[in-house]
Amino acid sequence: MSDDDWREVMWGCERWLTARRPTTAAQLLRAAADALPPQARPDAYGEGEIVEGFERRLAALLGMEAAALMPSGTMAQQIALRIHCARRGVDTVAFHPTCHLEVHEHAGYAHLHGLRAELVGHRDRLIELADLEALHAPIGALLLELPQREIGGRLPDWDALAAQTEWAHAHGAAAHLDGARIWESTPYYERSHEAIAALFDTVYVSLYKGLGGLAGCVLAGPDETIAHARVWRRRHGGTLFHLYPLAAAALRGLDTLVAQMPVFLEHARALAAALSELPGVQVVPDPPQTPLFHLHLRGDRESLQRRALALARETGVWLFGELGPTVVPGVHRLELNVGEAALEIAPRECRELLGAVLAG
Amino acid sequence: MSDDDWREVMWGCERWLTARRPTTAAQLLRAAADALPPQARPDAYGEGEIVEGFERRLAALLGMEAAALMPSGTMAQQIALRIHCARRGVDTVAFHPTCHLEVHEHAGYAHLHGLRAELVGHRDRLIELADLEALHAPIGALLLELPQREIGGRLPDWDALAAQTEWAHAHGAAAHLDGARIWESTPYYERSHEAIAALFDTVYVSLYKGLGGLAGCVLAGPDETIAHARVWRRRHGGTLFHLYPLAAAALRGLDTLVAQMPVFLEHARALAAALSELPGVQVVPDPPQTPLFHLHLRGDRESLQRRALALARETGVWLFGELGPTVVPGVHRLELNVGEAALEIAPRECRELLGAVLAG
Repeated sequence: MSDDDWREVMWGCERWLTARRPTTAAQLLRAAADALPPQARPDAYGEGEIVEGFERRLAALLGMEAAALMPSGTMAQQIALRIHCARRGVDTVAFHPTCHLEVHEHAGYAHLHGLRAELVGHRDRLIELADLEALHAPIGALLLELPQREIGGRLPDWDALAAQTEWAHAHGAAAHLDGARIWESTPYYERSHEAIAALFDTVYVSLYKGLGGLAGCVLAGPDETIAHARVWRRRHGGTLFHLYPLAAAALRGLDTLVAQMPVFLEHARALAAALSELPGVQVVPDPPQTPLFHLHLRGDRESLQRRALALARETGVWLFGELGPTVVPGVHRLELNVGEAALEIAPRECRELLGAVLAG
Repeated sequence: MSDDDWREVMWGCERWLTARRPTTAAQLLRAAADALPPQARPDAYGEGEIVEGFERRLAALLGMEAAALMPSGTMAQQIALRIHCARRGVDTVAFHPTCHLEVHEHAGYAHLHGLRAELVGHRDRLIELADLEALHAPIGALLLELPQREIGGRLPDWDALAAQTEWAHAHGAAAHLDGARIWESTPYYERSHEAIAALFDTVYVSLYKGLGGLAGCVLAGPDETIAHARVWRRRHGGTLFHLYPLAAAALRGLDTLVAQMPVFLEHARALAAALSELPGVQVVPDPPQTPLFHLHLRGDRESLQRRALALARETGVWLFGELGPTVVPGVHRLELNVGEAALEIAPRECRELLGAVLAG
């Protein structure tokens, strides 16, 4: 089956076990336009009220002095780490083995910034304080990702999280939060975005994953750090002539989706509970800690994908397209992300549909 | 006068001596949406027909094997130079003292890529072959900018241009074109985009200046170079979740503005001829070589700005907001860029209006 084939089927469905409904390119742009005051003017290289007001709003939400809109998390996080390290005269950062910087950025932190990484802990579990205590090299920054996406969106408990950022500060290192999915993490902690961010020196949050925007992110932190980050943004080629589309496209998410995250988590847990009754299904973690979680499915990969596609054609309900590997042969990984679209699929129906795919 | 004040006056005008009419943020997004086929789907990290088709179109227009959409010229040019230098085992590039990399990017080429610059020739004139022959350090790449914006949008004649790129190749260096304004440069040469690009190994063209888009650019060159550039784009944080808005917003410009560049140049020359009759006005260069050219205006800066603003309020015609410095005290620089908006102002009327501003 080619990519094009399964994409056609997905676009033809009526309901989707995903965060977002498929939306045409033109619709996404019109929705961003609709979110703006009609007379609002474009920024010039980030200067203008749409962008500056958005940055103030995000800084306030995160309880930080300042925030800068950036085109991507890749750029924002490299910049934050470079600043923390330069200030401390150290070129080493510490993060989880599945950190975005390690697995998705072609080692930009090394090629562009001359930074080196200490990978902390094991790739199949969360970082623990003992992992940090075993680090004897000086580091400029500790990066923590909430939730740890690649292992099913897991979150450390609050005390463990606080102990780790305290460890960083006690060792002269900055604590930086990869909070791409901070929106999805707050219901588990039952704490505000501000309370979580307060453990960290700098925080990056994504504008497109949970918020449904076009792209981009915000880096928040102290005034001086963010002013310096703006210089680095220009060096990186991130101070675009117009940055406002990234802000405009995230407004609806901020206004309506952030408040729904507890509902998405509740539905994720209800779906997970129903699906865990099926033979050949493991929920990771069980119960889910965020609206993003993983299923491990046992069976023949090609057959499972083919049956999910046939079922989508037949019922108009989209479960999944491609399954990823796990280390266990014959067990495949499916990342689910519960948002507005998935709310339309009840746990019982979902169990029946996935059961049919697994039974063959 | 604050920035806000003169911007209010500009937005209240009916005609503008500029390339673009002021447009609200929402209108720009809706125009980009309208340029797309209604069913077109968003790309995912650059993969999808809107972006890939756009890249093929630009590669064909420039006669190159491949092209990659990038969020900014800052990113694209650093990447091109890094690749050329790495391939040659040299860390030095050569460019004009007013090159964008030197004056607008906080030395990103050095901080991110470890490159060093040899500034070639004098900042107040074009690069000449003799300047290159005086370079005795090995270089990995020669960057030429067409037109040389900071000195009034000047262009070397064709034989001089060809001799310089030949010199680069004969000395083992790549020739890279800063063709942000290649669209504005073709009428002077009376040659195709492809013919100009053929002198170079890699070419960067802007999607927002002459084309009126939101932001972004395209880097074009050989397949292998552009494939490598895509790896660097990811390292830089430029492989955005959705890149298609940058392409969508440039479609109208490609379809309609590129073909009008000879008309814009003709009007620029007619305006320049009329304005050069005014005492206290010098046209740079005279005649203009592209729709972008400079005026040097003699007088008291504050008074000139105040009178231009008063005249805009009175007549609804926008001439200029802020004047920049020249090295001569009492002489100020005004960059004019002739596009659709400026076509609505006839040379004679323009001379009368500017004459009134100068006369006080």
